[in-house]
Amino acid sequence: MTDDAPDDLPPAGLLPAGLMDLLPPEAEREAALVETLMAAFAAHGYERVKPPLLEFETSLLAGSGAAVAEQTFRLMDPVSQRMMGLRADTTPQVARIAATRLGGQARPLRLCYAGQVLRVRGTQIAPERQLPQVGVELIGSEAAAADAEVAVVAAEALGRAGVAGISLDISLPTMAATLLDAAGMTLEALAARGLDRRLRRQMEEGIDRKDPVRVLTIAARAAPLAADLAALLPRLLEAAGPADAGLAAVAALELPPAARAIADNAAAVIAAIRARAPDLRITLDPVEFRGLRYHVGVAFTLYGPGATGELARGGRYRSGNDEPATGMSLYPDAVQRAAPAPAPMPRAFVPLGTPEAALAPLRAQGFATVCALSPADAPRALRCTHVFRDGRPVPLSQEE
Amino acid sequence: MTDDAPDDLPPAGLLPAGLMDLLPPEAEREAALVETLMAAFAAHGYERVKPPLLEFETSLLAGSGAAVAEQTFRLMDPVSQRMMGLRADTTPQVARIAATRLGGQARPLRLCYAGQVLRVRGTQIAPERQLPQVGVELIGSEAAAADAEVAVVAAEALGRAGVAGISLDISLPTMAATLLDAAGMTLEALAARGLDRRLRRQMEEGIDRKDPVRVLTIAARAAPLAADLAALLPRLLEAAGPADAGLAAVAALELPPAARAIADNAAAVIAAIRARAPDLRITLDPVEFRGLRYHVGVAFTLYGPGATGELARGGRYRSGNDEPATGMSLYPDAVQRAAPAPAPMPRAFVPLGTPEAALAPLRAQGFATVCALSPADAPRALRCTHVFRDGRPVPLSQEE
Repeated sequence: MTDDAPDDLPPAGLLPAGLMDLLPPEAEREAALVETLMAAFAAHGYERVKPPLLEFETSLLAGSGAAVAEQTFRLMDPVSQRMMGLRADTTPQVARIAATRLGGQARPLRLCYAGQVLRVRGTQIAPERQLPQVGVELIGSEAAAADAEVAVVAAEALGRAGVAGISLDISLPTMAATLLDAAGMTLEALAARGLDRRLRRQMEEGIDRKDPVRVLTIAARAAPLAADLAALLPRLLEAAGPADAGLAAVAALELPPAARAIADNAAAVIAAIRARAPDLRITLDPVEFRGLRYHVGVAFTLYGPGATGELARGGRYRSGNDEPATGMSLYPDAVQRAAPAPAPMPRAFVPLGTPEAALAPLRAQGFATVCALSPADAPRALRCTHVFRDGRPVPLSQEE
Repeated sequence: MTDDAPDDLPPAGLLPAGLMDLLPPEAEREAALVETLMAAFAAHGYERVKPPLLEFETSLLAGSGAAVAEQTFRLMDPVSQRMMGLRADTTPQVARIAATRLGGQARPLRLCYAGQVLRVRGTQIAPERQLPQVGVELIGSEAAAADAEVAVVAAEALGRAGVAGISLDISLPTMAATLLDAAGMTLEALAARGLDRRLRRQMEEGIDRKDPVRVLTIAARAAPLAADLAALLPRLLEAAGPADAGLAAVAALELPPAARAIADNAAAVIAAIRARAPDLRITLDPVEFRGLRYHVGVAFTLYGPGATGELARGGRYRSGNDEPATGMSLYPDAVQRAAPAPAPMPRAFVPLGTPEAALAPLRAQGFATVCALSPADAPRALRCTHVFRDGRPVPLSQEE
C-alpha cells in the first residue's frame, strides 16, 4: 500500500483510516475470545440478544444513546425514507429491547450481547473506527447486589479469557456534582451573587483532574458559597486508592446527606462484590466522573495488569422507561492485548491420494487437515506443522 | 408496536423493515451455529479473516463485488471525504485480502469468514436486510479437487450443525451461453441476418426457466442459426437430476468442444467429490445459470431436507488479479431453520445467601446460575428449570 495514488481514487487494497482487516491468527483469536466471554455470561444466566447494526436514529440515539450521537454514522433508509444510524454502542439497543419486546418479562432481566460497533472518528490513541463490543446488562433491580453481580461476572469473564491481575476501579460519577450543589455552588447561586458562572465548570475540571491546588483556588474565588468544599474536596481527592482505605477515609468525612447516601451505596456495592469475589482487587475513586456521561450510582472500570489499559467499563444507569439498570461493556480488542495468546491449531499436511476416512479422527484430535490438491502443494509452504504419513501426524521437524 | 404513530417519527421500538432483533434463545442459537460452521472450516485448514464492515466503495464493489453494487448501502467517510460501502457480500473483501495483504502467501490459500452483511432492500420472500454470512474461499488452485473440497467442507459443516439429508446441486453457469455462442446465435449474427437481437435473451430465459417448448419456438425463429440447439437443448434440460444419470446423459450428447470441456470439468469435480464424500447426494443441472452472476466453471447450491431452501451457495470464480478461486457462502439463518434446535441450557435459581464457592462446580456442569438479588426474586418468574438447594440443583417440577 502506498500513499502516492492519484487524488481521485484510493489505492487498491487501502482501507479507510481506523478500519482494518484482521488476518490469521488474530481474527480467530478475537472470535474465540468473544465466545469465551459470552460463555461466562451465559453461565451466570445472561441470555444473548442480537440487535441489528442499523436502526432508526430516533430510537438508536434515545436515552443513553445520546452520549454517542456525534460518533454515529447516519444513512438514509430508501425503504422508509427515514434516517438510520449505524450503532456506535450496543447498550441503548439492549435498553430498547428490554423496554419493548422484553417489557413483559420478569425482572431482573439478564441480557448479554456481542457484536461490532462503528464510530465516525477515531482518536489519536484509539484510532479504530470499528470495534467489537461484548457486554452484560442487568435490568430492573435497584439492589447493590445487582451492581456487584455485573462487576463480578465481567471480572470472571476476563479471568476465563486468561487475563491475570485484574483490578476493578469504582467511581461515583454523581458525587462531585452532588457536593457542589450541596455547597450551594450552583449556576443560579453564582449568578445571584455576581460571581462568574464559569467557576462551576472550572471547579468540576479541577476535581476531575485531581488538582487540589486548583480546587482550593476556585473555592476561594467562589466564597462564601463553597466554604465547606475547601475542607472536604482535597480529602476526597486523597481518598482515591484501595477500596478499604478509601471507604474508611470517606466514612470519616462529614458529608452532606445526599453525598453520604452515594458513599453508603458504594460501600454496599463493595461489600456485595467482596461477598462474591473476595480476591478481586478493588480501588475507589470517589470524585472521578470523566467520560461517564450517563451513569448514576457506581461506575466501574476493569483494568488488566500493567499498562494494558481499560478492558471493560460500565455501571448503573437508567434504562428505557426509566428502569433501574446496571451493566458492563467489554472491549475484546483490549482484552486480547492483556490475555495470553492461545496455542495455534496444529496443521497436518495430507498427501494426494490419502483416503478421506483416515482424516476425521485426525480432526477430532484437534488437527487442521490441509489436503494436497495437486503434486505442487508442499507442507512447509502451506505452513503445516505436521505431515500425515503411515496413518499418523509426523511433526515436520522430524521429516527428512 | 403500532402503525398509527405520527408521520414524522417512527413509533418507539419499531425497527426499519427487514432489520430485526434476535431474542433469546434464537440469538444464542445463531451464534453457536456460526461457531460450529467455522470450527468445521478450521478443521480443514481454513483460516479466519475479518474484513471491516465498511470500506471504500471502489474496493468493495470491484471484481465480484459489482454483482451486489445496487444492494450496497453507501455513506460518506468524513475523514477521507470518500464514499464508503457497507458490505452486502464478504466474498469480494476476502478476494481483496488474498490479492493484497496475503498476496505473498503460498497458494492454495484457504480462508474463512463469519460476519454480518447488509443490503439496501429485501425481497418479498427474503425480507431480511441484515444477514449473517459464513463462508470459505480457496484461492489459487485450478484443480477440480479444489472445487470438490469447498463443496465437501461446506456439506460437512452443515452436517456438524445437525442438518440431515443434505443435497448438493451442481450447475454449469457458462454452459448455456457457450452453447448459444457455438450455435452462432450471437447478437452480432442475429443482427447480421436481420433477426431480432432479443432472441438471444429470450432463448436464455427459456433455458433458465427450463421451458423446452419456448426453447424450440425461439430456435425456430432464429433458424438457421440455432439449428443444432433445437436437438440439443431439450435433452440438456432433461439431463437435470441425479448426477450420475445426468453425467451419462450429457456424455451421450454431441456437444461442441467448448461445451464438452465444461461437461468434462463437471465430471471431474463430481468424481473428486465422490472420492471425499461418497454418501453426499449430488444433482446436476447443466444449463441452470440463474442468479450466478460471476461464476465460471461449476456452481454449487446446498439444500437441506424438504422445503428448507438454499443453505449455501458458491462455486468457481475469478478472484483479485484474476486468480482462480472457488468458495462457498453459507446462510446461518437458513441453516438454523433446517437444523434441530439444541437443548436449552438448564437454569438453576440460587437463593439469597448461598455461598459463591458452591456455584462454580454447578456452572462447570453446564448450568446457568441465576442468583437472587432480592427476596422478591422467584425461580419460575426468572424462567429457571432448577433450584439450588442442599448443595445440588433440584428440578423445579420436583419443588413443592
